[in-house]
Amino acid sequence: MAMNEKNKGKAVEAITSMNEDFTQWYTDVVLRAELIDYSSVRGCMILRPYGYAIWENIMHLLDKRFKETGHENVAMPMFIPESLPQKEKDHVEGFAPEVAWVTHGGTEELTERLCVRPTSETLFCDHYSHIIHSYRDLPKLYNQWVSVVRWEKTTRPFLRSLEFYWQEGHTAHADEEGAEAETLRMLDVYADFYKESLAIPVIKGRKTDKEKFAGAKATYTIESMMHDGKALQSATSHNFGDGFARAFDIQYTDKDNTLKYVHQTSWGLSTRTIGAIIMVHGDDNGLVLPPAVAPIQIVIVPVAMHKEGVLERANALKDELSKKYRVKIDDSDKMPGWKFAEYEMKGVPLRIEIGPRDIENNQCMTVRRDNGEKLPVSLDEIGDKAGELLQAVHDSLYEKALALREGRIYDVTEYGEFCRTIAEKPGFVRAMWCGDKECELKIKDDTQATSRCMPFDQEIISDKCVCCGRPAKHLVVWGKAY
Amino acid sequence: MAMNEKNKGKAVEAITSMNEDFTQWYTDVVLRAELIDYSSVRGCMILRPYGYAIWENIMHLLDKRFKETGHENVAMPMFIPESLPQKEKDHVEGFAPEVAWVTHGGTEELTERLCVRPTSETLFCDHYSHIIHSYRDLPKLYNQWVSVVRWEKTTRPFLRSLEFYWQEGHTAHADEEGAEAETLRMLDVYADFYKESLAIPVIKGRKTDKEKFAGAKATYTIESMMHDGKALQSATSHNFGDGFARAFDIQYTDKDNTLKYVHQTSWGLSTRTIGAIIMVHGDDNGLVLPPAVAPIQIVIVPVAMHKEGVLERANALKDELSKKYRVKIDDSDKMPGWKFAEYEMKGVPLRIEIGPRDIENNQCMTVRRDNGEKLPVSLDEIGDKAGELLQAVHDSLYEKALALREGRIYDVTEYGEFCRTIAEKPGFVRAMWCGDKECELKIKDDTQATSRCMPFDQEIISDKCVCCGRPAKHLVVWGKAY
Repeated sequence: MAMNEKNKGKAVEAITSMNEDFTQWYTDVVLRAELIDYSSVRGCMILRPYGYAIWENIMHLLDKRFKETGHENVAMPMFIPESLPQKEKDHVEGFAPEVAWVTHGGTEELTERLCVRPTSETLFCDHYSHIIHSYRDLPKLYNQWVSVVRWEKTTRPFLRSLEFYWQEGHTAHADEEGAEAETLRMLDVYADFYKESLAIPVIKGRKTDKEKFAGAKATYTIESMMHDGKALQSATSHNFGDGFARAFDIQYTDKDNTLKYVHQTSWGLSTRTIGAIIMVHGDDNGLVLPPAVAPIQIVIVPVAMHKEGVLERANALKDELSKKYRVKIDDSDKMPGWKFAEYEMKGVPLRIEIGPRDIENNQCMTVRRDNGEKLPVSLDEIGDKAGELLQAVHDSLYEKALALREGRIYDVTEYGEFCRTIAEKPGFVRAMWCGDKECELKIKDDTQATSRCMPFDQEIISDKCVCCGRPAKHLVVWGKAY
Repeated sequence: MAMNEKNKGKAVEAITSMNEDFTQWYTDVVLRAELIDYSSVRGCMILRPYGYAIWENIMHLLDKRFKETGHENVAMPMFIPESLPQKEKDHVEGFAPEVAWVTHGGTEELTERLCVRPTSETLFCDHYSHIIHSYRDLPKLYNQWVSVVRWEKTTRPFLRSLEFYWQEGHTAHADEEGAEAETLRMLDVYADFYKESLAIPVIKGRKTDKEKFAGAKATYTIESMMHDGKALQSATSHNFGDGFARAFDIQYTDKDNTLKYVHQTSWGLSTRTIGAIIMVHGDDNGLVLPPAVAPIQIVIVPVAMHKEGVLERANALKDELSKKYRVKIDDSDKMPGWKFAEYEMKGVPLRIEIGPRDIENNQCMTVRRDNGEKLPVSLDEIGDKAGELLQAVHDSLYEKALALREGRIYDVTEYGEFCRTIAEKPGFVRAMWCGDKECELKIKDDTQATSRCMPFDQEIISDKCVCCGRPAKHLVVWGKAY
């Protein structure tokens, strides 16, 4: 990705319009808002301070939720000996084609190759087999914040990269019910986080067997709709049953003094999430950040800075607001118009302009990033009012995303219409499915759409599979996906 | 490290005495306090919840200091193309023998090998060469929290492992003075953190050329003394001058419109720090944690729990103390004596016992981990008193470590005495040095001691080099090191 020359250029140009070329718009935003830089390693991105600060906020908010639900953080090695994943057949088949191999350490060739973790189920299983002995040791509710590597052929910042950042939760439970409850609980944590912190509505559902995680008994997912109508798998939660436990011999002595296998789960959310934020909320002026994860929630731009008292009052305002919010004041010598454009590009949710006339009137001008709405606010009330405005930005981002999504979900019962809808209308299609993988493959061949999930809100909109006409078993949400 | 069977055994045994076998004592503490588990990859450790929680506290406290001094976090790829480090000759020579090589991605052999980062100077340089153009772009004050890999032959948990966790700061400045000031500022941040948060006294100084970082113009270090008298290099800060900038062509246009090379620094602190905490403060009952980084600062152990009102009062106490401190209550059905030993092993700084008679007297019993001191405290005053006791634990840990260190630093002017002192007395030796690498090599050959640093507090204790007798240039602190 030797695109640094291009990157340099973009720093001063306007960005591509999203309706003109959504892919280019995305790349422009990612670079122009200084979220990432390309590195000298193919498909590996550099998270720049502004991009990393968004990820820090995501980590902080999610980690709090994980700890509140009793989870503990650990750190596993980044390497996995080649023999370890072999123990679980489905799992190794799923990941072997896309791992990076370490073959030499220093000047020596290794006797056993090490793979750079693409995910860490096998490491957790190995560890659990050492530390779980009794029912008293259960449940084990572990999580780790790390980067993982998957050798992808084509890559895009945040959406698909060789190395990406994520958290992976790995838990062990005494029985099936415990594992299933955990799997669903963490899916709910993700869905709630998406709604409350990212202002993104999601569809919760279960993956078909074809789409589930390698080695899982059941995979649950939250799916969100991007601005171009495509789906983004936004987080997943897997119930492994006792499959890994049998492969790795993770047994415990139960109260009744018998040996039993544990039941396990894993669940993950990655820096893809930043891609979702960009593609759900962004517009032709750049990034639009939900306040909960915005590195700068409020930017103060003093107007006519050289006039007596303006900078002092602006700084006093900054000090006041900084007690509650993440605030930046831009007192550089750039023109206010340049600053407005810059912080719009960076998606700062709220801008406050303050000049001599405002100060005279004991007020400031607030400007919302999401809809450009301007509102003069008394300087006596701005402390609380800023919070209300940030909440309003959040709510309106969510409502807008929800309305856009709801307007682009099509219920279809006939295959010709199904194919036409996928081809012509950006969005999701809801249609019945017989449960047969052949129909999924045919649909993908014909339309490029995949089954995103069998939503928890099941409805019978037809008694026949939309593809083959045989009796329908599930309502499925279909769509083209990132 | 297939030591899991041993690990299991240790979970119920008493640990080795530190005076009997310091190395075994260390291993016992690390496993028995559940800081780590060995993994299936040679030399890679698993940080268990309790061990990781200490690292989380260290990260949190240091990150706050970094941000207060204007630094921003970023994330660089974990891979470095083989050609990149070649640009800086000293650097590549220093690290080439100890890196892990990725040679295959998926099923394909790579055209260029990738090394798993042992440190990230070259990645930061490559990035800086793209993003630094003008004096307005300087300084760049970046940091990242990651793990790095060095292919060590012999390993020990925290002290030397193939993969370890650390932060690495990388900064770019307009001139020499800026880089030197940053290098020293960050050394001070480390020294202050060691004192204020870890209760560990350090010696600040400069490394000799032989001991400095590969590619650095000057390396500064903080050195601490372990309980066995050996030295631990506890954090380092490097001034690179413009060496890397010339190799990577990192130039900027200065105010006078001329092109200039930037001057760079890097500085790092790793999970070794946890090794220092163990070996400075620990005792025969296990870990002793400084309150600032202890995952549990106060453990409440209810006594005669079945008696009416005991658990309720203990829980009320927990709720009160949790507002200010990290508190755990152990209301499991284990015996109080077992619990006392367990939390002593885990190094919890303060234990509070509360039973029926205490409640009757409106008091509780506090027990300090560092010296076993028991003090009854009124339940009305415990909120503030607990904070005072934690501060007292911190202060006394620091004073004890300082006194132990000061009592084991020997000023020596004659070579026979130098060798005898190193051989017979655990601790550091202060002796003059001519500045010649040959003398360092001879001293290492003769005594296994290395120059730890040329301390900032220079004193002339002789005018001759302790080794060769030629005119002395520097006072050096010598010692055997981890």
